[in-house]
Amino acid sequence: MSEWIKLASQVIERCACLAECTEEPGHTTRTFLSPPMHEVHARIRRWMEECGLQVRVDAAGNIRGRREGTQLSGTLYIGSHLDTVPQAGMFDGILGVLAGIALMESSGPYTFPVEIVGFSEEEGVRFGLPFLGSRALIGDFTPDLLAIKDREGVSVEQAITAFGLDPKCIPAARAESAALGYLELHIEQGPVLESRNESVAVVDAIVGQSRLTLSFEGRANHAGTTPMHLRHDALAGAAEWVQTIERIANQTPGNETPGNEKQGLVATVGRLQVTPGATNVIASHVQASLDVRHPTDFTRKAAVEEMVTAARQIAERRALSILVEPHLDQASVAMDRGLTNLLEQSVAACGFAACGFAASRLNSGAGHDAMVIAPKIPAAMLFLRSPGGISHHPDESVRVEDVAAALQVGHNFLERLGGIQ
Amino acid sequence: MSEWIKLASQVIERCACLAECTEEPGHTTRTFLSPPMHEVHARIRRWMEECGLQVRVDAAGNIRGRREGTQLSGTLYIGSHLDTVPQAGMFDGILGVLAGIALMESSGPYTFPVEIVGFSEEEGVRFGLPFLGSRALIGDFTPDLLAIKDREGVSVEQAITAFGLDPKCIPAARAESAALGYLELHIEQGPVLESRNESVAVVDAIVGQSRLTLSFEGRANHAGTTPMHLRHDALAGAAEWVQTIERIANQTPGNETPGNEKQGLVATVGRLQVTPGATNVIASHVQASLDVRHPTDFTRKAAVEEMVTAARQIAERRALSILVEPHLDQASVAMDRGLTNLLEQSVAACGFAACGFAASRLNSGAGHDAMVIAPKIPAAMLFLRSPGGISHHPDESVRVEDVAAALQVGHNFLERLGGIQ
Repeated sequence: MSEWIKLASQVIERCACLAECTEEPGHTTRTFLSPPMHEVHARIRRWMEECGLQVRVDAAGNIRGRREGTQLSGTLYIGSHLDTVPQAGMFDGILGVLAGIALMESSGPYTFPVEIVGFSEEEGVRFGLPFLGSRALIGDFTPDLLAIKDREGVSVEQAITAFGLDPKCIPAARAESAALGYLELHIEQGPVLESRNESVAVVDAIVGQSRLTLSFEGRANHAGTTPMHLRHDALAGAAEWVQTIERIANQTPGNETPGNEKQGLVATVGRLQVTPGATNVIASHVQASLDVRHPTDFTRKAAVEEMVTAARQIAERRALSILVEPHLDQASVAMDRGLTNLLEQSVAACGFAACGFAASRLNSGAGHDAMVIAPKIPAAMLFLRSPGGISHHPDESVRVEDVAAALQVGHNFLERLGGIQ
Repeated sequence: MSEWIKLASQVIERCACLAECTEEPGHTTRTFLSPPMHEVHARIRRWMEECGLQVRVDAAGNIRGRREGTQLSGTLYIGSHLDTVPQAGMFDGILGVLAGIALMESSGPYTFPVEIVGFSEEEGVRFGLPFLGSRALIGDFTPDLLAIKDREGVSVEQAITAFGLDPKCIPAARAESAALGYLELHIEQGPVLESRNESVAVVDAIVGQSRLTLSFEGRANHAGTTPMHLRHDALAGAAEWVQTIERIANQTPGNETPGNEKQGLVATVGRLQVTPGATNVIASHVQASLDVRHPTDFTRKAAVEEMVTAARQIAERRALSILVEPHLDQASVAMDRGLTNLLEQSVAACGFAACGFAASRLNSGAGHDAMVIAPKIPAAMLFLRSPGGISHHPDESVRVEDVAAALQVGHNFLERLGGIQ
């Protein structure tokens, strides 16, 4: 075990090393193809080359390190993402990439080729559209995505070119058609494994999610001279709606019973931009994000419809206009049954199974690259405990024992997969 | 009259000319000593010099054009401000400065010296603290103001130095101690004169106002994996509070009766900044502005107290922390009785009085430089009709007949003031 602890320590140290690469001094903020991603690639390239991988950066900005297999076989992809939310922790995504590299250091070659992938984009922060990296891997990076613009008016195409890559080569980022599988190690980012006192769990399915932008438009006017009853205050309308979202989510079946939160609906307004945004001016325009998730697609869609209807009613009553833009309607995605069973056997074989025989199973409340990849490539995911359930926050952490457990399980999984090839 | 219409047209044309000077292409946004203010000063300097004024820019960034009087006398200051809210209209503040210059073109010299002042700062956008320009005129630009920083971390002192001025010379910006008076022409920025079908009105008093910043602090976490009942969502708390503000304002005595809005309370949350501000992250921190105004100081203070208490209660119930920072507690300010009566006589003499004999009187729901100046220098204000009651918005406008009326009244006021000197 001490060998795994040593390797796990190195993985954690490397996560800390990459957290230094940031757009925002004093925090870790790293969006799609932002300047600090160059330094991330340089460091990962060195670590990949040290364990003999062939390294390239594809046209979507994914860094990929490959080791050929000893026999003719489809490739096993192991990966996660390298971008972060604003003011992020050190481990979300990054840990899965560095754990993949650590697995290449400690074992193989296998009968099958292995490719470690550090995806360029998963969080959707810069362009409001997540999974740009994994979309490229499965050939779903359609040309229309290139035209999407960030808040500064820079398009995806311009961002790719500015990073020194050629958008025309995106089709070449696609994985081979007969890929063997995709494995993703990721922190849970929630409180369940901690409450069960377990290191790792096998992911059954990833819940479905909807993302929308709602824009409320009223009329800017002077805060001192416009009587209350003559206002068309976009922020007052948006605030009423944010409260309604919370109420609808709390009333969704499953959420009335605390402890049943695994099956509950979550709805979040995390971004709210107010224009013009001055103390003495009534807000003319508010743009708000909406993120809704649930393991049952029907329940999720019904909740989104209720929330959009509520927005329209609030806007009508306040004589505001409203624009609703759906960005994502991602169905709940099951992981591959065969690979997941194999992963469960590895958890049990390494002694991390809950009751000594069956590994812990979880639904993932967060979207992951595995969700995008699963429809095209058999995919499996292993979750690591998140202390305090904290993620998307500088206090995000991992326990070195849990990282060691994940590496040991990952190693066992690779050996096992080689055995059945 | 046609001569006044011609002069009014020139004033409007010059307002449009200054609206080109902006920090934000496509809009007019011009905060305290921002780069476009250099060009504003260059244009105003030319127009002032064309009518024989001695021009200087004082250390607070106010541009001042002076014409000496024919006898020994205190100075009459005529002015308004040159800064704007974000995405502003063309007339708020600017019109009063250019009308002052137009009055110098059309008349005088008088027995008393006249100084036209274009104040550098009134709106409080950049440093969250309004009236920096007029504070300097009355000797109330205290050294502690120099340390205040804008959102980019630039201090008032640095902003003054960067503009090419010397903060040490601010005391020299002070008006003479025996000033004759201060006259401000300004658009109403509200709907009352339009509803009365009148061109101009004399201002009785300026309502008191409070400005505060409230910061709600919760905990950032993943939007997909954090159950609703375990969240500390700063935005959900702030949204509940914004709704409460609106309810408290609507329930304040005076607001239940539409048509009585002149005496009503107005409360506005115009700025709301959400951190980290990503679709898939629960907000950890929300900073909101609060602006409350009422002609009776007691009513205003009681409302502010109720709103702050509500914020504390919401924060406590949601396990958020809260920080309340008061920035401004400006008492209701009466205009000078003597100058105001003189102005009323001018309105009547020029034929713009409501019933042929008594000029229209108004309270101002907006703060103005005259409010800061009135405690030190006898001050009077003339309001012009605001079509549609629209201000702080690109659609802000004036009618050329109303500007002509204001110039005619202003001219009559100067002649009348010369007569009694």
